[in-house]
Amino acid sequence: MLAPRSIAILGASAQLSKINGRPLKFLLEKGYAGTIYPVNPKYPQIAGLTCYPNVEALPTIPDLAVVVVPANDVCPVIEALGRKGVRAAVVFSSGFGEMGAAGKEREAALLAMARANGVRICGPNCLGLINAFDKVYATFSQYADGDTAPGPVGFVTQSGAFGTAIAALARRRGLGLGYFVNTGNEMDVGFADIMSRVVDDPRIKVAAGYLEGIKDGPGLVELADHCRRIDKPLVLTKVGRLGAGVRAAASHTGSLAVEDDLFDAVARQYGIVRARNEEQMLDILEAFVYTAPPAGGRLGIVTQSGGAGVMMADRAEEVGLTVPRLSAQTEAELCKIVPGFGASANPVDVTGQFVAEPAILRNSVLTLLADPGIDIGIVWLQLMAAHVDLLVTLFTDLKKSSTKPFIVCWVAAPQEAVEGLHRAGIAVLRGAEPAVDAAAALVRHAAARRAWLAAKPDAVPIADTGSVAKRPAPRAGGPPWAGVVPTLQAVQWLAAAGVPMADVELAESEDGAVSAWQRFGGPVALKIESPAITHKTEAGGVRLNLKDEAAVRQAYREIIQSARKYDPQATLTGVMVQPMATGDIELVVGVKRDPTFGMMVMLGMGGILVEVLRDVVWRQAPFGVDEARRMLDELRMRAVFDGVRGRPPVDKHILAVLLSRVAYFADAMKEHLLELDLNPVLIGEKGVVAVDCVMVLMGQRHSAVV
Amino acid sequence: MLAPRSIAILGASAQLSKINGRPLKFLLEKGYAGTIYPVNPKYPQIAGLTCYPNVEALPTIPDLAVVVVPANDVCPVIEALGRKGVRAAVVFSSGFGEMGAAGKEREAALLAMARANGVRICGPNCLGLINAFDKVYATFSQYADGDTAPGPVGFVTQSGAFGTAIAALARRRGLGLGYFVNTGNEMDVGFADIMSRVVDDPRIKVAAGYLEGIKDGPGLVELADHCRRIDKPLVLTKVGRLGAGVRAAASHTGSLAVEDDLFDAVARQYGIVRARNEEQMLDILEAFVYTAPPAGGRLGIVTQSGGAGVMMADRAEEVGLTVPRLSAQTEAELCKIVPGFGASANPVDVTGQFVAEPAILRNSVLTLLADPGIDIGIVWLQLMAAHVDLLVTLFTDLKKSSTKPFIVCWVAAPQEAVEGLHRAGIAVLRGAEPAVDAAAALVRHAAARRAWLAAKPDAVPIADTGSVAKRPAPRAGGPPWAGVVPTLQAVQWLAAAGVPMADVELAESEDGAVSAWQRFGGPVALKIESPAITHKTEAGGVRLNLKDEAAVRQAYREIIQSARKYDPQATLTGVMVQPMATGDIELVVGVKRDPTFGMMVMLGMGGILVEVLRDVVWRQAPFGVDEARRMLDELRMRAVFDGVRGRPPVDKHILAVLLSRVAYFADAMKEHLLELDLNPVLIGEKGVVAVDCVMVLMGQRHSAVV
Repeated sequence: MLAPRSIAILGASAQLSKINGRPLKFLLEKGYAGTIYPVNPKYPQIAGLTCYPNVEALPTIPDLAVVVVPANDVCPVIEALGRKGVRAAVVFSSGFGEMGAAGKEREAALLAMARANGVRICGPNCLGLINAFDKVYATFSQYADGDTAPGPVGFVTQSGAFGTAIAALARRRGLGLGYFVNTGNEMDVGFADIMSRVVDDPRIKVAAGYLEGIKDGPGLVELADHCRRIDKPLVLTKVGRLGAGVRAAASHTGSLAVEDDLFDAVARQYGIVRARNEEQMLDILEAFVYTAPPAGGRLGIVTQSGGAGVMMADRAEEVGLTVPRLSAQTEAELCKIVPGFGASANPVDVTGQFVAEPAILRNSVLTLLADPGIDIGIVWLQLMAAHVDLLVTLFTDLKKSSTKPFIVCWVAAPQEAVEGLHRAGIAVLRGAEPAVDAAAALVRHAAARRAWLAAKPDAVPIADTGSVAKRPAPRAGGPPWAGVVPTLQAVQWLAAAGVPMADVELAESEDGAVSAWQRFGGPVALKIESPAITHKTEAGGVRLNLKDEAAVRQAYREIIQSARKYDPQATLTGVMVQPMATGDIELVVGVKRDPTFGMMVMLGMGGILVEVLRDVVWRQAPFGVDEARRMLDELRMRAVFDGVRGRPPVDKHILAVLLSRVAYFADAMKEHLLELDLNPVLIGEKGVVAVDCVMVLMGQRHSAVV
Repeated sequence: MLAPRSIAILGASAQLSKINGRPLKFLLEKGYAGTIYPVNPKYPQIAGLTCYPNVEALPTIPDLAVVVVPANDVCPVIEALGRKGVRAAVVFSSGFGEMGAAGKEREAALLAMARANGVRICGPNCLGLINAFDKVYATFSQYADGDTAPGPVGFVTQSGAFGTAIAALARRRGLGLGYFVNTGNEMDVGFADIMSRVVDDPRIKVAAGYLEGIKDGPGLVELADHCRRIDKPLVLTKVGRLGAGVRAAASHTGSLAVEDDLFDAVARQYGIVRARNEEQMLDILEAFVYTAPPAGGRLGIVTQSGGAGVMMADRAEEVGLTVPRLSAQTEAELCKIVPGFGASANPVDVTGQFVAEPAILRNSVLTLLADPGIDIGIVWLQLMAAHVDLLVTLFTDLKKSSTKPFIVCWVAAPQEAVEGLHRAGIAVLRGAEPAVDAAAALVRHAAARRAWLAAKPDAVPIADTGSVAKRPAPRAGGPPWAGVVPTLQAVQWLAAAGVPMADVELAESEDGAVSAWQRFGGPVALKIESPAITHKTEAGGVRLNLKDEAAVRQAYREIIQSARKYDPQATLTGVMVQPMATGDIELVVGVKRDPTFGMMVMLGMGGILVEVLRDVVWRQAPFGVDEARRMLDELRMRAVFDGVRGRPPVDKHILAVLLSRVAYFADAMKEHLLELDLNPVLIGEKGVVAVDCVMVLMGQRHSAVV
């Protein structure tokens, strides 16, 4: 589909400016070297090429068919293509899934027809595709109206209009696209399918995608994994960052599972570089195309303006880079190079003096980059319309002389400057903050890749989750344990999977509660146990810190009373009795089965304030301890782990072990588990313990299977 | 200085491309209508103008002198200018405050000379100034090399290099600067001085500034107030967002007083529009120059791409705009206009079909803007190089037909499109998110202005703070009450100022503590009282929830013991006894004397997690209840006030009253107060109460004056 030696255009028009004329026009203009077969019964020939009346009349089997016929004619055309032996088609025609119920029906029929006839389809309702290397212009996009020098970026977009805008912006920046593909309705071939082929082209260095929704989660994960293996960065912009959570979820975790957060987690986990909007995508592409991976996140800055240095240093801190102090030796050397009214500390300010003495800039950058504490450099300058040649020569030389990567941030750069630096293989960014963001993307991607390359099988022994996973199916007929799992059972499974669970006993009577309290020998908590009640606090089903027999008895009675009032229909199994747990930090750990990405594990800060902040991170299960450590570092409130108000730092390792074990448990249970809440998970002096859990299995929710 | 009828250039060169030749070159080239006097003993004339050997020889007194002489010659030149009667000079020369100790000394001498001779100075070490309306080019900036059509933006920059970059970017966008002024070292005339003159020019509609630091806090506040009165938006970009707090502060509040946060607070309070970087500044300027103030924050979006609509709606939510559902009538009308595969709900997606049928776009925008629930519109489109004329005509007509403001977001817009829309008085933004950010700036500014116009004197009676303010000075000689104020005294003052303070008694013995406990008749807290100990918890000086006599006695002994151990030198006044306060939400309120902005009041979320998040907002004292309400709405965790986990919402009014009273107290005490912490302030069922306070007055810190 992407590199056809021959292309048939079904519904080709002799009016080359029309949608059905434009592919032919582009193919001819741009010099496509393969064979073109216009197909249209209305014309004997178009633009000097023989025009065929129908598919059957074609002299050979084309590698690709471009279909530009009315919606109702698409199905028969695909059938004819299949019969002829054509295996790939790009369908521009609209009037399918995007057009209400009738369109959806038509799309289903088209898909069936394509499958039956062995034709793979890109579209329908798409702008088509461009392979600029081989001059394949199977598109009517206005982007193809301009000059399109092929470049090392493969771009695939779900949106035609937004994708065209991005491609046009790339052209303005002098950033060459090797491929431009619009996948349209993705009825058959989707984003990940196309992109996985695009990145296999050795002329492509970086993959760029614009997404409006993830239709194929596993495909995306596989694509990301493929890109990681062949070492080509995958840069994605996805709209819909603020999707609402699933309102009807039984668990906390379920209600916090916002689609975009899950995508974001998968992106982090599999090395996808996420760009928040179109301009940031292009900034990051620019950086990847021209810049070698930095060895770390220590940024050296050279500017001709102190303010730009401050702005970049601030931004660096925000995005997780450091702007370290230089070694005494480097500072001393810079002090000799930089004018007295500049700054020889990082960020280095060489002032505008370098226009008169270019060696100031050259030597400052080389000296800075030579510092053993610096991994990547940014050089900031502005305008300099009168000095473009001088600066291009200087930077070309710098690129050859420096062993570390650097990017140039040139505000209001003249066009010739951008072209000159591109020729020298140097990325040019347009603003101080975007330059830092692009550098951060390079740093994060390189670090993620190093971590992936260095990853070893987990050293932490994972408890026997295999046998646990078999447990939920002891009964014949119907989903076993469907709905809420009895707490004792859930605790037993989780403990067997190596998750540290707090002690708990089930009391089925007041006396039972008292004797449990006696056995624990300290203050206890009582919580209602009922398959129908997952929000125990709301049901008045929780009493804490009960210190004597009278308190335990009273609490038992009150809990049963409140629960009956809350839900008169609920089966009340009894009351769970637990020793009071203490902890400085309260977390929530959970699992949610997501239709797109499968078993997703959540870590969040607990407590009342956190509900407001929704400080949660996700990962796809299963994952090891190292990945779990990275989750901890992504919480906004991660600083609490380092100890606040004089508290000792938290042992992050044992917390990561817990997360990883939950992840393996979720994976082992993936045939059954719907949702899991460990809430709260307390971190105290004695380590980490999950105090309470709600586990819901697939099948009818809230059924009383106990 | 800004509109001189004659200009002398001291040190003018015949080599017009050199720094000392460029002002003359620009003045001649651009057609300055006033008189130019080159001054340089080396030349009899330059470029056909008589060149004078020195200041004395000038035939009249020029309105402005441009000084381009070596640093050592500046002082004598200023003296000569003063003698001659010249009142304003722009000094390009560097080698002053920016050049180490010797430079600072030279600058001090220059300032003294300028003051003694009545010459006001812009600079030294500056690029000079441009008044493009009157062709005043008292500058050597490379920005003046290009074409500079005067426009309604007055731009003043502390940085020459960054300022030039911003000006060049403005030119690329077709955004005309009326003034360009670089204030350099701001030895004499500062940013606010210059800007307050610039905005008084009736040809200026919007003021734009780039700041690297605030040297004159009151001047900036006055400027902002002036801009608000004459209704000209003041848009500022300030670098240094992440400055560190004052480490050595005695109070919580003090340590949280980050310079940039204080600037940000003053910006909100006085209607300054803050832009985070150069591109956002230009986006916002574009919006202000061409767009009328919206009546509210309800955004209507029309796009030709569903994804762009989603991206803008997400961004709108992030920046506090709403993208409301349209009325049923509007949706029904749009349904008739928009093609079936588009979207007739907000965001409206008209698809690319409007190229064939322009009425689709025109009528969609008009219908959307006519909806009574919409205040401002954004129309998103891309590229469309072949349809620029059609679209410019269409938008020109739309601008005339619509009664509500709208802006156009045109990604990869052709240059003619931008020019065409500018002629029609329409703002053109370049990206989806920047367009929403610019709209949000318009909305926030309009809302702040409405609030300011509607502001009435405070309805809440403020307690007698005047008499309180007099209290700290009962003793003759030296700062009275210097250092930490005894808690009882501080509580008394604050209570007198109307701040709700928790009950408290001082116990000077174990027995005293017990009898206080008896009087309060319930559980109490004990806290160490010592002028030397402000961090009571760290000193082991706090015991909570003491319910019986034995507990009170033991706590008293332990507190005294811990405190002695913590600081053997400390004078221990006794132990404060307080009834246990309860509250759902814990806040911190404080006051900090800032060298730039004076008495600043802080509100922050309390508790351990908040220390990590630093969720605090500031205002300059004094302020009323309305302003205090706005503080509440700026906390990141403001949602806790609306009630979480089924708790009732907080009465924000009483909290705002507390804040306002603290602000009036701070203002009344401004001669004495250094820092104040009310920590915690608890919000519970019974209202708001400050449970503990630390008050520090000016003078020697931690002195035992008690």
